[in-house]
Amino acid sequence: MPRTSEPGRSVSSRLLEVLFAFEPDQSTLSLADLVRKTGLPHATVRRLALELTDVGALSRQHDGRFTIGLRLWQLGTLAPLTESLRSQAQPFMEDLYTALHQHVQLAVLEGSEAVIIERLSAPRAQHLVSHVGGRLPLHCSGVGKVLLAHAGADLIERILSGTLRRYTPQTNTDSTVLRSELAEIRRTGHATVRSELTPGADSLAARVVDGEGRVVAALSVVVRTGSVLHQAALPSLIAAGLGVSRMLGWRPGTRIREA
Amino acid sequence: MPRTSEPGRSVSSRLLEVLFAFEPDQSTLSLADLVRKTGLPHATVRRLALELTDVGALSRQHDGRFTIGLRLWQLGTLAPLTESLRSQAQPFMEDLYTALHQHVQLAVLEGSEAVIIERLSAPRAQHLVSHVGGRLPLHCSGVGKVLLAHAGADLIERILSGTLRRYTPQTNTDSTVLRSELAEIRRTGHATVRSELTPGADSLAARVVDGEGRVVAALSVVVRTGSVLHQAALPSLIAAGLGVSRMLGWRPGTRIREA
Repeated sequence: MPRTSEPGRSVSSRLLEVLFAFEPDQSTLSLADLVRKTGLPHATVRRLALELTDVGALSRQHDGRFTIGLRLWQLGTLAPLTESLRSQAQPFMEDLYTALHQHVQLAVLEGSEAVIIERLSAPRAQHLVSHVGGRLPLHCSGVGKVLLAHAGADLIERILSGTLRRYTPQTNTDSTVLRSELAEIRRTGHATVRSELTPGADSLAARVVDGEGRVVAALSVVVRTGSVLHQAALPSLIAAGLGVSRMLGWRPGTRIREA
Repeated sequence: MPRTSEPGRSVSSRLLEVLFAFEPDQSTLSLADLVRKTGLPHATVRRLALELTDVGALSRQHDGRFTIGLRLWQLGTLAPLTESLRSQAQPFMEDLYTALHQHVQLAVLEGSEAVIIERLSAPRAQHLVSHVGGRLPLHCSGVGKVLLAHAGADLIERILSGTLRRYTPQTNTDSTVLRSELAEIRRTGHATVRSELTPGADSLAARVVDGEGRVVAALSVVVRTGSVLHQAALPSLIAAGLGVSRMLGWRPGTRIREA
């Protein structure tokens, strides 16, 4: 979000604005782009961008434009949630992939969206717009519904009382329907979403629970509508969700905690 | 590396020092840890750490210690090399994993080390110390030897003229032997490393080449010594390396370029 330069903005906040100007669909930026996106003076942006490049946080292409650098990527891999969750979940995701040969995704809640922290993709399966680091809406994606169902009451009410954006003709935009779906997901631990986010793509999602009974992630299989019998995929997905949960210390009988 | 506070250090460089204080084996840091590692005054470190936490670059645990935050992780996923390479390589890595059920790794050269940018792990295969974002030495790891063999003459001479650190009794520390190994790897495109980095772990590695003939990555399978016949694993690894290369625009006959 572009802002005008405020004299009171600290140098460190300016540096962070330059960094966070990089976004999934705008991951290669020229100096002019950075000036436009941050609202900072050209000279300031130039100095900060070069400083970030010096330490490897940004990288400069032959055409002079900037991208996120490998060193910042490495730093990001130290984020504890993604590091431990990803490593615990990966073997189960690989087994699911081997069994089903469909997209397998792992997502966590951040703010009011689901963030994909790991994904295994089948080359010839349904094409997806999502990618690792990408975000999905809570009200109409499989992982989103599972994460929302187990989120705090504040977030649930905020989503239910807001506008439920329509992505496809199948997207449910009725908050009463969504509210009863969320109750059912809390009861069963899994969700089935049919073409609500992408036409022709269905998502089966199951919760991942830690040792204290908190739902920390959702695991999903995304399939082309009709390509795999949901009844066949669902048990293996549920088993994988329970398997990852066990690795995180969950045991049968652990009560699911309200967020 | 701790440094004493220099009055001339810019605010932005201080912020970056706080960020880069987080390392693979020190990924959860208290304020006192950050003060010690950066050499900055306590009040400065506290202000910067809280500012980084506010924007999601850091995350604060219940015990008050800091970790890298999910938002910084997301930012890191935008690094172009890892993003495109990982997504192109992943299907081939999954097929290799399905066929062999052994660790499969993808690494790129950064500075004078190999950095693992993707890894699929077999739960019951050889235990490895490496992880995504982790670094491996060039002179005695599979991916390292492949990347070094195709690196610039400057880097090769610098590694050969330096000390070749011994990790196991099998680590080759003779630069003459390494030089001839590198020539052989350039000729064949692949390397076999036996227990040179971890006792009992062998690594088979193959180069990944882009459309201009540049070696941009190395793909490896790490197996427990004797657990899989090298002769059986090598052809599938080489085929996977060529498969990823094709996705990057490489075609048979493209000349491998000197770095």
